[in-house]
Amino acid sequence: MTLLERLTAINAASPFSRWAGFTPTLAEAGRAEIELTTRPDLANHAGHLHAGVTQGLVDTVCGYAAATVAGPVVTSHCAVDFYAPATGGRFVARGRVVKAGRRQVFTTAEIFAVSETGEVLVAGGSAVLVPLAPAPTEG
Amino acid sequence: MTLLERLTAINAASPFSRWAGFTPTLAEAGRAEIELTTRPDLANHAGHLHAGVTQGLVDTVCGYAAATVAGPVVTSHCAVDFYAPATGGRFVARGRVVKAGRRQVFTTAEIFAVSETGEVLVAGGSAVLVPLAPAPTEG
Amino acid sequence: MTLLERLTAINAASPFSRWAGFTPTLAEAGRAEIELTTRPDLANHAGHLHAGVTQGLVDTVCGYAAATVAGPVVTSHCAVDFYAPATGGRFVARGRVVKAGRRQVFTTAEIFAVSETGEVLVAGGSAVLVPLAPAPTEG
Amino acid sequence: MTLLERLTAINAASPFSRWAGFTPTLAEAGRAEIELTTRPDLANHAGHLHAGVTQGLVDTVCGYAAATVAGPVVTSHCAVDFYAPATGGRFVARGRVVKAGRRQVFTTAEIFAVSETGEVLVAGGSAVLVPLAPAPTEG
Repeated sequence: MTLLERLTAINAASPFSRWAGFTPTLAEAGRAEIELTTRPDLANHAGHLHAGVTQGLVDTVCGYAAATVAGPVVTSHCAVDFYAPATGGRFVARGRVVKAGRRQVFTTAEIFAVSETGEVLVAGGSAVLVPLAPAPTEG
Repeated sequence: MTLLERLTAINAASPFSRWAGFTPTLAEAGRAEIELTTRPDLANHAGHLHAGVTQGLVDTVCGYAAATVAGPVVTSHCAVDFYAPATGGRFVARGRVVKAGRRQVFTTAEIFAVSETGEVLVAGGSAVLVPLAPAPTEG
Repeated sequence: MTLLERLTAINAASPFSRWAGFTPTLAEAGRAEIELTTRPDLANHAGHLHAGVTQGLVDTVCGYAAATVAGPVVTSHCAVDFYAPATGGRFVARGRVVKAGRRQVFTTAEIFAVSETGEVLVAGGSAVLVPLAPAPTEG
Repeated sequence: MTLLERLTAINAASPFSRWAGFTPTLAEAGRAEIELTTRPDLANHAGHLHAGVTQGLVDTVCGYAAATVAGPVVTSHCAVDFYAPATGGRFVARGRVVKAGRRQVFTTAEIFAVSETGEVLVAGGSAVLVPLAPAPTEG
């Protein structure tokens, strides 16, 4: 089973991620990507992607990036900066492990709106994940 | 129109909040509350409330608390600490304005799991909101 | 040795805290307080308490509050919101444990400027601390 | 006056930055760097750089990066993740503007311990800065 197949299976087992349409599209050691094609019911009152969905993307892609190096994790802390309205029909979330310790994995993520003319950075954030089964070595 | 009626109308105009079942139950100057009865499709793989929904509650109740004193706002920053798994069938989110300036409104929120035996704090966080129409006075 | 005597000893062993003049004034299970009488060399260009000192107060008082329940800890994450310019000659930092787990201690803190007319909230924040010697029980 | 000369003058006007030994070494549109040679009185009880000094570096270099594009700013929010003990005698802080709006400037920073064998990332963070004199255009 590849890392991407493993994340895809985890994602399929999460009802909210499945309902929202989160789709893992990349997984390598310390990195993960999720794509999302938006729908009317993911919107806020202004028609943009709801901040809860944006935060869910940050948290989820950070967790997936952490899982590629640390196995099962739970989120301890997640913070998101909203740079621009999340408009448009497609989004990609890119997560990355900054530092993987035995007891904590530090990650960051960026959320881009994707269109034919390119990508626009709409949000960024960071998350601290705690491995469920700490590795035996230092960290 | 009372503050609660105003928040209820804003909430009804947000497709994601409506889909998730966010229900404003309190609004007074500087404070707001949202109740949520969970459903299977709001869960993560472990059957707990998905972190994206928890973050959506924090962001939304902070925004509603800010709106009671500053009118329409957009979220600039939102951070959430996850203290305990968000288990159970009912949740209440309580948001509060800490400092309302002309250009930024600082808020905090707590999320409780509610059961017959009482309330359990499962998450807490803070958000910075930016008023869409800054007040004329200093801040 | 009381909790306050223990924090006072830890504080005295930290050259920066000693130089800055951080003075622990309260320690009980899950709570700590630090007082600071400011000086010109703690200021920023505007003459207010430098943000680094304010952040140092948040981080330190959160760590001290955590230490009252978890023993030695290290800071993993610290976030500070700056509500108002930190003006005046005296400050008090109040830290509180929100949730103490075996592997992480979640805390919050508030920083007040103190004068004869009362206290003004100038900053607030939160920190996640990791116990150096995790307790044997789950968390 | 170059951008670096401007930051150097701002830095010299800040007593805490001067006492700590913060030294601006790079300034270009959207980027700034600060170097720090540590001393015993910048340490915590373990002899590492005190978290307050690390946070002061993050906040300051983020503010300097913001100032290169937005002029005078004040910090609204600053969050720091501590990846590893800040050991060693020299540090470099690198700040970068992620998004400069009219009312808010979003920035990130990384702090590296520098030695003959290279650089080690010891902390990272983000800050939201508010321009004192908003530009006339929207953002």
